[in-house]
Amino acid sequence: MRVLITGGAGFLGRTLAARLLQRGHLSGASGDERIDRITLADVVRAEGLDDPRIEPVAGDIADRALVERVITSETTAIFHLAAVLSGQAEADFDLGMRVNLDGTRTLLEVCRATGHCPRVVFASSVAVYGGTLPEVVLESTPLTPQTSYGTEKAIGELLVADYTRKGFIDGRSLRLPTIVVRPGKPNLAASSFASGIIREPVAGVEAACPVPDSTGVWILSPRRVVEAFVHAHDLPSGAWPTTRVVNLPGITLTVREMIDAMGRVAGQEAVSRVKFVPDARIQGIVKTWPVRFRTERALAMGFRADGDFDSIVRDHMESEEGAKREAREKA
Amino acid sequence: MRVLITGGAGFLGRTLAARLLQRGHLSGASGDERIDRITLADVVRAEGLDDPRIEPVAGDIADRALVERVITSETTAIFHLAAVLSGQAEADFDLGMRVNLDGTRTLLEVCRATGHCPRVVFASSVAVYGGTLPEVVLESTPLTPQTSYGTEKAIGELLVADYTRKGFIDGRSLRLPTIVVRPGKPNLAASSFASGIIREPVAGVEAACPVPDSTGVWILSPRRVVEAFVHAHDLPSGAWPTTRVVNLPGITLTVREMIDAMGRVAGQEAVSRVKFVPDARIQGIVKTWPVRFRTERALAMGFRADGDFDSIVRDHMESEEGAKREAREKA
Repeated sequence: MRVLITGGAGFLGRTLAARLLQRGHLSGASGDERIDRITLADVVRAEGLDDPRIEPVAGDIADRALVERVITSETTAIFHLAAVLSGQAEADFDLGMRVNLDGTRTLLEVCRATGHCPRVVFASSVAVYGGTLPEVVLESTPLTPQTSYGTEKAIGELLVADYTRKGFIDGRSLRLPTIVVRPGKPNLAASSFASGIIREPVAGVEAACPVPDSTGVWILSPRRVVEAFVHAHDLPSGAWPTTRVVNLPGITLTVREMIDAMGRVAGQEAVSRVKFVPDARIQGIVKTWPVRFRTERALAMGFRADGDFDSIVRDHMESEEGAKREAREKA
Repeated sequence: MRVLITGGAGFLGRTLAARLLQRGHLSGASGDERIDRITLADVVRAEGLDDPRIEPVAGDIADRALVERVITSETTAIFHLAAVLSGQAEADFDLGMRVNLDGTRTLLEVCRATGHCPRVVFASSVAVYGGTLPEVVLESTPLTPQTSYGTEKAIGELLVADYTRKGFIDGRSLRLPTIVVRPGKPNLAASSFASGIIREPVAGVEAACPVPDSTGVWILSPRRVVEAFVHAHDLPSGAWPTTRVVNLPGITLTVREMIDAMGRVAGQEAVSRVKFVPDARIQGIVKTWPVRFRTERALAMGFRADGDFDSIVRDHMESEEGAKREAREKA
């Protein structure tokens, strides 16, 4: 089987690809099937995965010709992660609509035209919620996005459900919590700070926190979200509700609790590197996001949250060490 | 001011236009403003409204050039009624997506480009609900459309809300109950029978009812829905929730109760003209629609339901009589 990961040059896309390479198979029409190829489509060429099964393709996800090139009738597993992130989609309305709405629709249309009903795992977001929310968000809480990004993700979910109902795809949408700790550089997501206030300090660098330390964040680790993508793909069709959407389980922490955990794991010096620099634009977006969820459905479907934030910080530090070691060995 | 009604050649569009001609004004930036022109855009040329203020325009709502022609900076009131109806959108997926999704987006984009933030009243539908629903649908019930039409309307609502939030339009979405009694011919809505089982029999013609007589229908009369469009437009922006959507109030009747009311108003002979001819396709669509609602928000905002179904039948018969008289006088 062939696998397509859109947004495949991004951190989540590459981490998912690495996991799939290691695993070697995914559930298919006739039980487990060997993965022969993983196509990583993104605006830039995906780097850093050294395996003959990896095929990086650079291009625009809203360009139908590109999408037709990366989806063949053998592409039975599609992970649709490509997106313009929340801060950028809010600042550049046209770009957000083109990539997040037109891109998703183009991908679904090409699946439909190919006619092989692939499994499509769509990375949605808790940004579909917003405004006046209950203390705890339930599966039954209505969608009231307060950002263009959240609107585009909600529309994507509706399209995935309808294309599934019509038999064009076998779709599954996951509403991702904020993924912490993302390695690498800050990105254009309004939630970028949530990783930055851990990643930079443990690497000896100062980090600006644009929100008050009482701000709550609904968190899932990179390790768990990659597990969730694979699990979402491998679940049988009948395990999904007709909406085809699930809120992934996470854990809720305030910025203060995150920083305290970092202090326990990485020492007080790291804590002293966090500087609070209020940013009204970021606060305006982040404050519309919910921070507490009940996720019985996801848990019953076999999705798992992290145990605690200390382990997330520890995992991050270990994988950074591993990456450094690997770089040294290559050099 | 100029008014645009898309779907302006349809029954609701023409009835709304007639009401606006009679009224002569709508609320604008500086209080009540005189209506100078009402553009009726539709795939066919709108007929039957004899007034110098009426401008019929035939064209495709998904064609940007057409939409640019009918929206100028003076077009401060837009009623967006154009749609491929439920039965047809289910049978022709591409047509439904093009008109109901691309058409709505084109209209919103032209408003945005014009830059004058017009009031846009969007005709949505209770078809945004579906699947396993509570006994009574509340404002807080999540959207789970089970048809492409419902999906496209839900997406339209999300776009109207986001374009409003961004300041591109001042949008208001109304989820319409089934409109009964529509005059004229059956249409391609799956709900067409709900008017047909009254309209045909009182005109002395047999009518086929494709659903069992226990089927419930959530009903609003043509008179009340036109009132609702005008009221939705004239309400100040602050009267709307951030979702910009309201479920219009209606009344719930079973097909049997509708037929009984017709018997009381039009006699038993009319009742005998209803023939039950089961249609699995129609039943499959209709059974996904909710039939009971709590609409406190709409009532608090000043929207009104009909008193009873007998008056709806009586109103329909009187307006048919009026139309015949008018035709005779013209002849």
